[in-house]
Amino acid sequence: IDSRFPAMGTTIFTVMSRLAAECSAVNLAQGFPDFQAEDALFDAMHRHLRAGRNQYAPMAGMPELRTAIAGKVAALYGAAYDSETEITVTAGATQAIFTAIAAFVRPGDEVIVFAPVYDSYVPAIETVGGKAVYAHLRFPDYAPDWDEVRALITPRTRMIVINSPHNPTGALLSAADLDALAGVVRGSDIVVLSDEVYEHILFDGEAHASLSGHLELAARSIVVSSFGKTYHITGWKIGYVVGPAALMAEFRKVHQFNVFTVHGPSQLAIADYMQDASRHLGLAAFYQEKRDAFRQLLAATPFELLPCRGTYFQLARYERMSELADRDFAEWLTREVGVAVIPVSVFQPDGRDDKVVRFCFAKREETLVAAAARLQRAF
Amino acid sequence: IDSRFPAMGTTIFTVMSRLAAECSAVNLAQGFPDFQAEDALFDAMHRHLRAGRNQYAPMAGMPELRTAIAGKVAALYGAAYDSETEITVTAGATQAIFTAIAAFVRPGDEVIVFAPVYDSYVPAIETVGGKAVYAHLRFPDYAPDWDEVRALITPRTRMIVINSPHNPTGALLSAADLDALAGVVRGSDIVVLSDEVYEHILFDGEAHASLSGHLELAARSIVVSSFGKTYHITGWKIGYVVGPAALMAEFRKVHQFNVFTVHGPSQLAIADYMQDASRHLGLAAFYQEKRDAFRQLLAATPFELLPCRGTYFQLARYERMSELADRDFAEWLTREVGVAVIPVSVFQPDGRDDKVVRFCFAKREETLVAAAARLQRAF
Ligand SMILES: CSCCC(=O)C(=O)O
Ligand SMILES: CSCCC(=O)C(=O)O
Repeated sequence: IDSRFPAMGTTIFTVMSRLAAECSAVNLAQGFPDFQAEDALFDAMHRHLRAGRNQYAPMAGMPELRTAIAGKVAALYGAAYDSETEITVTAGATQAIFTAIAAFVRPGDEVIVFAPVYDSYVPAIETVGGKAVYAHLRFPDYAPDWDEVRALITPRTRMIVINSPHNPTGALLSAADLDALAGVVRGSDIVVLSDEVYEHILFDGEAHASLSGHLELAARSIVVSSFGKTYHITGWKIGYVVGPAALMAEFRKVHQFNVFTVHGPSQLAIADYMQDASRHLGLAAFYQEKRDAFRQLLAATPFELLPCRGTYFQLARYERMSELADRDFAEWLTREVGVAVIPVSVFQPDGRDDKVVRFCFAKREETLVAAAARLQRAF
Repeated sequence: IDSRFPAMGTTIFTVMSRLAAECSAVNLAQGFPDFQAEDALFDAMHRHLRAGRNQYAPMAGMPELRTAIAGKVAALYGAAYDSETEITVTAGATQAIFTAIAAFVRPGDEVIVFAPVYDSYVPAIETVGGKAVYAHLRFPDYAPDWDEVRALITPRTRMIVINSPHNPTGALLSAADLDALAGVVRGSDIVVLSDEVYEHILFDGEAHASLSGHLELAARSIVVSSFGKTYHITGWKIGYVVGPAALMAEFRKVHQFNVFTVHGPSQLAIADYMQDASRHLGLAAFYQEKRDAFRQLLAATPFELLPCRGTYFQLARYERMSELADRDFAEWLTREVGVAVIPVSVFQPDGRDDKVVRFCFAKREETLVAAAARLQRAF
């Protein structure tokens, strides 16, 4: 059989998680918590299961959850999305991103993405016959260059994908960045897809500049978020999108024939759990403690730490420690030192290698301490 | 914004379920049970939630579930699929179908489907820029014509999609049909996508002719099934595909960037539940009772019942009762009689209307009796 995607490999997260398991390494590669979510969430799910809420949810999602999302987004960003027509629950943020791309990008269309780029965006674009066009985040602060973006726009540009807090770099877009982006797309019919799955994980008092809160951009944007990241349940695969009704109608055309609808009992459990806003509002402080502790642990190694302003990922430069390319260094670190990480060059379309690896610190203190002990011993 | 899919509407299942709710009609339209699944399933889920199985499942699915699927398929169809490389768990059968199509169909490729055609196939084909080509199931027994299929094949034919037991008609493909299909595709590189989500619901002792059990076809086929249909949990959205490793590798390329992975605790609960094979083996007898009872109830109305050899859908012709087109008849029946059904012409690309509607009988006895009472009163 002729492959549609001969060059497409296995996602780095699967590769590194497998290798970590094989080597009994501490897995700081794939981004997921190694601690437990709260029983309240599990007991709510059990209650809804027992109550017989086991058949298809409405295509757009359970009304209870859409209402809770509308309330949260209004409270945080002052944005008034209609829960009937402007919010859709998805099978995780990955499915949201894939579906949004499929809903808008025609064969031959161009989509501007920023390198380093999260690894699902470009395959999604290529699956529908679109073409990724790369802007570049500047090393080492990973700031965008809006003049570069402006120069990349052509009549075929259909979409720009942004991501803040940014995976893998931990960089943030500012309110000024959003204004600049608005200037770039003004007068065009370019759709903006904004991946904000780490919206609740920002440090040192920084505020999240959500596209939902930017009136001009919100009118042309689909904004993606994730309950997996927010409530420590990555395995439930529940996310959502918000956007103006005209765009959401297009999104749902593809959504209904891609997954049709999403795990219902989980939606109901999450809707219950969201009623206590401290559960998402407290996330920044919760992860700040982990970030600070982990940075302190790494300070006792020769790694050079890059800034981490958001997400649960810490980038570290190893230039003083090894001559290896970052993929080889990541593999060596996993096999020989027993700590699995993600090499950042896999997110660079041209393979650019700044000798930087990504650590996930969404882990129990003892996990972070164990990883740091191995690193300190090795270097 | 220019729509990619200006002609694409809302799926008939959403439309009719909404209308049924609005009119307080008995909903025999969308296919889902109105009875409860077993507590064993819910308690298993709760146990896994509490045990902390809440982070990403492996991309292909939980090994426990893949092993159970391999065992079931081997026991039923004598097919030896490797659980590591030849089985993938999906977010329902709809996502499985969408992903299989996206994995193989390139822009400009042709895909042969049979009319009446389940409503997600063609939008999935069009989302990746492919073209649906229609073969026809013969009214009123809905048998395929393999000479017609042979005549439709061109150098651009990439895939043939079959579905048995067939939704919406309840027709079955026979072993002879599979042999004929094998003859049609022999020597080509056409992939067969086989939607077998009702594999456990066949009546009067008929045996399911699974593509998994057809050695020659299995080597070029992706076979789709669904736990929602089998275990009365349509809202959980868990399905799976089996296929030879070379095809499965292509499927997974798209799967990993579409949904990445599927609700983990549900997979573990289902794996536990599958250990008792009587739970799927008993399904045919369970639904035969419902089918027989419902047919008997409808016998007291002027509806002409078509054969129902599998699925939980009963087709009925209303020609003697009304001159309305089937969409109008379905709407009238919902609004005025209080029984919601699906008009079959929506599955016909040319709108062909045989004056047939589809009833779902996956309902409690009292629901079926209440619906029949309304129908008997009206006619
Ligand atoms: C979708 S699996 C990987 C989780 C993740 O987003 C990451 O590790 O960056
Ligand atoms: C995917 S929702 C509809 C359920 C179904 O398959 C049907 O009613 O035919």
